[in-house]
Amino acid sequence: MKIKAGIVGGAGYTGGEMLRLLVNHPAVAIQFVHSNSNAGNLISDVHTDLLGDTDLRFTDKLSADIDVLFLCVGHGDAKKFLEANDIDGGIKIIDLSQDFRLKANAGSKWVYGLPELNREAIKKAGYIANPGCFATCIQVGLLPLAAKGLLKAEVHINATTGSTGAGQGLSATSHFSWRNNNLSVYKAFEHQHLNEIGESLKQLDSRFNQIMNFIPQRGDFTRGILAAIYIESDLTAEEAQRIYDDYYAAHPFTHVSRKNIDLKQVVNTNKALVHVEKHGSKLFIVSIIDNLLKGASGQAVQNMNLIFGLEEGTGLRLKASAF
Amino acid sequence: MKIKAGIVGGAGYTGGEMLRLLVNHPAVAIQFVHSNSNAGNLISDVHTDLLGDTDLRFTDKLSADIDVLFLCVGHGDAKKFLEANDIDGGIKIIDLSQDFRLKANAGSKWVYGLPELNREAIKKAGYIANPGCFATCIQVGLLPLAAKGLLKAEVHINATTGSTGAGQGLSATSHFSWRNNNLSVYKAFEHQHLNEIGESLKQLDSRFNQIMNFIPQRGDFTRGILAAIYIESDLTAEEAQRIYDDYYAAHPFTHVSRKNIDLKQVVNTNKALVHVEKHGSKLFIVSIIDNLLKGASGQAVQNMNLIFGLEEGTGLRLKASAF
Amino acid sequence: MKIKAGIVGGAGYTGGEMLRLLVNHPAVAIQFVHSNSNAGNLISDVHTDLLGDTDLRFTDKLSADIDVLFLCVGHGDAKKFLEANDIDGGIKIIDLSQDFRLKANAGSKWVYGLPELNREAIKKAGYIANPGCFATCIQVGLLPLAAKGLLKAEVHINATTGSTGAGQGLSATSHFSWRNNNLSVYKAFEHQHLNEIGESLKQLDSRFNQIMNFIPQRGDFTRGILAAIYIESDLTAEEAQRIYDDYYAAHPFTHVSRKNIDLKQVVNTNKALVHVEKHGSKLFIVSIIDNLLKGASGQAVQNMNLIFGLEEGTGLRLKASAF
Amino acid sequence: MKIKAGIVGGAGYTGGEMLRLLVNHPAVAIQFVHSNSNAGNLISDVHTDLLGDTDLRFTDKLSADIDVLFLCVGHGDAKKFLEANDIDGGIKIIDLSQDFRLKANAGSKWVYGLPELNREAIKKAGYIANPGCFATCIQVGLLPLAAKGLLKAEVHINATTGSTGAGQGLSATSHFSWRNNNLSVYKAFEHQHLNEIGESLKQLDSRFNQIMNFIPQRGDFTRGILAAIYIESDLTAEEAQRIYDDYYAAHPFTHVSRKNIDLKQVVNTNKALVHVEKHGSKLFIVSIIDNLLKGASGQAVQNMNLIFGLEEGTGLRLKASAF
Repeated sequence: MKIKAGIVGGAGYTGGEMLRLLVNHPAVAIQFVHSNSNAGNLISDVHTDLLGDTDLRFTDKLSADIDVLFLCVGHGDAKKFLEANDIDGGIKIIDLSQDFRLKANAGSKWVYGLPELNREAIKKAGYIANPGCFATCIQVGLLPLAAKGLLKAEVHINATTGSTGAGQGLSATSHFSWRNNNLSVYKAFEHQHLNEIGESLKQLDSRFNQIMNFIPQRGDFTRGILAAIYIESDLTAEEAQRIYDDYYAAHPFTHVSRKNIDLKQVVNTNKALVHVEKHGSKLFIVSIIDNLLKGASGQAVQNMNLIFGLEEGTGLRLKASAF
Repeated sequence: MKIKAGIVGGAGYTGGEMLRLLVNHPAVAIQFVHSNSNAGNLISDVHTDLLGDTDLRFTDKLSADIDVLFLCVGHGDAKKFLEANDIDGGIKIIDLSQDFRLKANAGSKWVYGLPELNREAIKKAGYIANPGCFATCIQVGLLPLAAKGLLKAEVHINATTGSTGAGQGLSATSHFSWRNNNLSVYKAFEHQHLNEIGESLKQLDSRFNQIMNFIPQRGDFTRGILAAIYIESDLTAEEAQRIYDDYYAAHPFTHVSRKNIDLKQVVNTNKALVHVEKHGSKLFIVSIIDNLLKGASGQAVQNMNLIFGLEEGTGLRLKASAF
Repeated sequence: MKIKAGIVGGAGYTGGEMLRLLVNHPAVAIQFVHSNSNAGNLISDVHTDLLGDTDLRFTDKLSADIDVLFLCVGHGDAKKFLEANDIDGGIKIIDLSQDFRLKANAGSKWVYGLPELNREAIKKAGYIANPGCFATCIQVGLLPLAAKGLLKAEVHINATTGSTGAGQGLSATSHFSWRNNNLSVYKAFEHQHLNEIGESLKQLDSRFNQIMNFIPQRGDFTRGILAAIYIESDLTAEEAQRIYDDYYAAHPFTHVSRKNIDLKQVVNTNKALVHVEKHGSKLFIVSIIDNLLKGASGQAVQNMNLIFGLEEGTGLRLKASAF
Repeated sequence: MKIKAGIVGGAGYTGGEMLRLLVNHPAVAIQFVHSNSNAGNLISDVHTDLLGDTDLRFTDKLSADIDVLFLCVGHGDAKKFLEANDIDGGIKIIDLSQDFRLKANAGSKWVYGLPELNREAIKKAGYIANPGCFATCIQVGLLPLAAKGLLKAEVHINATTGSTGAGQGLSATSHFSWRNNNLSVYKAFEHQHLNEIGESLKQLDSRFNQIMNFIPQRGDFTRGILAAIYIESDLTAEEAQRIYDDYYAAHPFTHVSRKNIDLKQVVNTNKALVHVEKHGSKLFIVSIIDNLLKGASGQAVQNMNLIFGLEEGTGLRLKASAF
C-alpha cells in the first residue's frame, strides 16, 4: 500500500525536484501534481529530463485522496493556499516555503522539519515547515556546538549559493551572460534565514543570544551551498571533532569529514558534509549541501519518510553527479 | 542472493561511476575494488562524494569469488590484464575499454554491449565489450535508419563531449583555466570510435558503406555528449519519426522526443534521447547521452542486468541533475 | 580634431561594447548615448564595468553635431529609427541590426560592412550594414574559397555561439540554471544569417549556388563563435593553406593559424582566426571570432576607422582575456 | 625613445599577461622574453591568443640592453635568478614573485609596489616587489581605514579567487572536471599573503596589531578575486564612504562604488573597485580585482609607468570582458 502524495506548485524548481525524487520512490504513488499555469500539460514538457519516466500531467484540480501534500509554492503562497483550501485533517502537509518556519507564524501544530534537530518530533508531526536552504547548511554547521552550549561568541558565516537557490524566475542576476564566471555578495548581514537559524540554536541552547554575521554570496554554479563558519572557542580540534561525530552519529545523511571538503561531494544528493578545524583560538567549520535536495525537496522526502515510519533514506540514496 | 561484483581500475572516472551505481544497486554486492595505486586506501578518500555511503577500501588482491568482473582500465590495459590473469570461465566480464569492441580484436566470445543493438545476444553473453561514449551517442542516432537500410548517403556528424570524456589525467586541455568558456575541435574526421560505429551499422545493414564525416568537439562542461547528425533522405518527417519510435519502443532507456532536446535532460542518468526533424532533403537527428553513464558505467550495469536476468533498469533509475 | 560619435540603443549588449571601445578610442569623442529606457542614468549604472572610465549619462535627445551614428538597436528598429528621424546626409551611419544587410532591403547606398570582403567600398561608404555574428564567422571561413570559385559542393557548417549572441533579454535559454553546462541546437538549417552569407559568396563567385547546411548551437559560454566547416574539395592541404594565406595577407584582424585553434584565442578581441586541414577529400576549416567584437561592435569600429581614413586597427588592439 | 623591457619567465600566466599588455603599450619595446623551456619557440605558440600580434620568439639569452626587467618566475626563483645573474644597477627590476615583498627578505632597496600605498616611493624606486593578488585585493579594502588608525578590532575576510591564481601547473584542483561548478576553502587562517598585508597596514598605522581572520576560497571562474571584509567600527556609513572616497580620489585605477559590485566589473582590467556598507556595528567592505592584472602583471606595468614618469594609466586602459 503506497503513500499517496499530492504536489502543489509542481512547475517550479522545488516541485520539479520533488517529482524527480517521487517518481523513483518505492513507497510513493503520485496522485496529482497541481499547477495553475500548466494544467493539462505533460510534466515532461516542463521538467524535460523526466521524458520517459512519467506520463503524468499537471492538473488544476486538487484531490482529497492523498496521505501527504507537498506545498512547493512561493513564499507567502503556502499560507494563502491553506487559507483558501480546506485540507482534511488526516493529510500530512509538508510546506517548502518559509511561511511556517518561524514559531510566531507557525502555531503549535507545525514542526520545523530539520531531522538533525527535530527527528522525533517530525515522526509525530502532522504539519512540517521544511527549512530554508542556507538555514539547513548553516545549522548543520552549528547544531553540535549549540547542543553543548558552546556558541559563546559571535558567529562568522560566509556562504555561497548556486543559481537554483533563486528559483526559476528570470532576473538580471540569473542571466547566464551576467552570472557565468561572476561572484557577488547580497543581503549582507540581513538574510531572512538568520531568523530560523536563531530559533533552532535557541531551542538547543536557551541562553544563545550571539550575533551571527552572515555574508551570503551568489556563486556561478547551479546547485549547492558551501558555508565557511568560525567562532572563538576553547575546544581543541579533537574535542570539536568528537562533539560533531557524536552529534551526527545517528543521522544517516550528515557526515563529518576528516578531510577538507568541496561542494561537489554533495551535489545531487541529500547529504550534508561537515568539516571541522582549529586555527589559533578559532574553531572553523565548513558545511555543504545541495540547496535543492537537503536544502529543499530531498529534506521534504526525508521528513515524509520519518512521518510514515519508513527507513529514513528510502528513495533518497542518490547518485552524486560528482563532476 | 546478490550478484558478486569485482571492479578492476576502481580509482578512475568510469571506476568511480561504477561504484556510485553499485553501492545503491539492490541486487549487487561489491566483492572487491582493485587499484594498484590506491591499495589500502578508503574508496571515499578517492571518490570523496561516497563518504558516508561505503567503508570499502581499494585492494591489490583479486578474488575469484565473484559473478561479474568490470574492467575499468585504460585502453590496452584490459587486454593485458586478461593475459596476465586467469579469470575463471564462469565469471562474466564487462570491459569498459576499447580493447574488444572491434570484431578483429574481439574473437567470437565477446559481444558488443549496446542493448539497443544487441540486447538478446547480451543476455547470453559471457564477455561484454562496452561501447565507447561517442559511439553510443552516434549509434543511438543512426541505428533505426541502418535497420531499415536507409543510410544511403554520406553521414554528417558533429558531436561535443564534456571534459570527463578525456578521463582524469591532467593535460593542457583539461585545465580549468583553459577549458572554461572555451570550445575546440579535435581529431576531425579521424576519431577512433568511427570504427565501432561502422561495424554496428554494417551489422544492421550489410551493404552500408557510406562515408561518415565526424567532427568531435571539446565542450566546456563536465558530463554529456550531444551529437548533431544529418543525412540526405527521402523520408518524410512523419515516416522518420515512426521509424525511430518503433525502433526504440521496447528500449527502456532510449526515448524519442517530439520536442527539441538539450544536453542536461540526460546528464547524470542512463538515458539517451533522440530528436528527429526534416529540413528540405535532409533528415536531421540530435542525440544526447551522459558520457559516463549511458556512455560507459551505466551501460555496463545495464548489460550486467541483462546478463543476470534482472529487470533492465534495476539500479539505474537515476535522478537527473537537471540543472 | 576627434570624430564625433553618437550611439542609439546604448543600453544593450552591442551598445555597451561600443562604449567600452569608444571610451578608449584615441580619435573619437562620444557626443551622446541615446536610450529611451535609461535617459538620465549614468552609463556606468548600466554598464557597471565602466565605473571610473566615464561620467557620461544616457540621453533621450539626439544631436546633429556628430560625424558618425551607431545604431545598436534591435532588428527592425534601425529601419524604424531612420524613418522617424531625419539624419543629416553628411553623417555616416553604421547599423548593427540586420535591417540593411540584404541587398533587397538595403538599396544602393548601404555597404555590407565586412572589411575582409568590402574594404575599399567601406572606405567610401556613407551607410554601413554591419554583418551578423554567425555570418562574420562563417564568411571568414569561406571567402577565400569563394574568391577562387572553389565552393563547388554543398557546404557543411556547425557553429556554436555564446550566450551574449542572444542579447540581454531574459529568456528560458538565457537562464544560468538552464544554460550552465548545457548544449543545444536551434534553428537547424534555417538560421537567418544564411541569406547574408549567400549574398557575399555570390558577390565573389557569381555562379555560387550551393546548399549550405548550417547547424547553429547554443554553447554554455558567454562570448565567441566557433564554426566547424567542411566541403568536398580537390585542393591539397598546401594549396588551401596558400589560398587562405594570400586572401588574408592584407587584413590586419584575420589570421590563418598553422595549428588547431580554440575559441578563447579571440575572446575579447576584434580578431578572427582560421585554421585549414585536409582530410581525405574534405577540406576542413575552423574559424573563430568574438561575437560581440569582430561579430558586432568591434567590426563597427573597424568600419568607422576605414571610413574616416584612420589606421584600421585604431582603438581595436585589445587585450585578449585568454583565460 | 621607448622603454626597453625584458621578461624572464615569459611562458607562465603572469609572463603571458605581461606580454599581452606590453605588445600594445605605446611606450615600450620588448627586447627579449626569456624562457628556458621554450627557447626558440614563437611566443604565439605558447600564448596562442597573441597570433597576429607579435612574431617574437622566446630566448634563453639575457640582454643587458634594457631599461626594465620583469621577473615572472615562481616563488623562490626570483631570488635565485638575481643571485645567479649580475643585473646592471641601472636596470629597474619589477619582481612578480613573493621573494622580496616582506621587509625581512627585501632589504632597503626594494619597494613594495602597491601604488595605492607607495606611489611616491615607487616613482623613485629601482627595485619593485610587486604585491600578491589576494594581498592587493584585501589591502585595497583596508588601506583607507588603516591610514586613519581605524582598524581597531579583528578583521574578518573571506576572499574567493579564480583558477588562474594557482598558475598554469596541472593539479587535481585545477582539473576542469573537478573545478567546474565547484567551490572549496583552502589554507584557512594561514594564507601566506597575510604577512604582506600586515606589513602594509602597520606602515600606515604603526599601532596596528589586530588579528586578521582570512578564509581563502577557490572559485569556479578563471579570473578575479572578490573579498568580503568586515570589522567592528564606530563610523557611520557616510563617514566611511567619505574616508574611502578621499583615500582613492587621486588613484586612477581604484574606485569606490556607491552600488553593490560584482566580480566581472573588473575582469580583464587593471581596476580595483571597492564598496562600503554599514550594518549594525559592522563596517562591511567588498573589494574586487582581476588577479592577473591589478593583482599581478597590470600592477607591474602600472609600477613601470610610475618609475619612468609616464602617465600612470598608459597602456592599461583595458576593455573589460564584462560578460
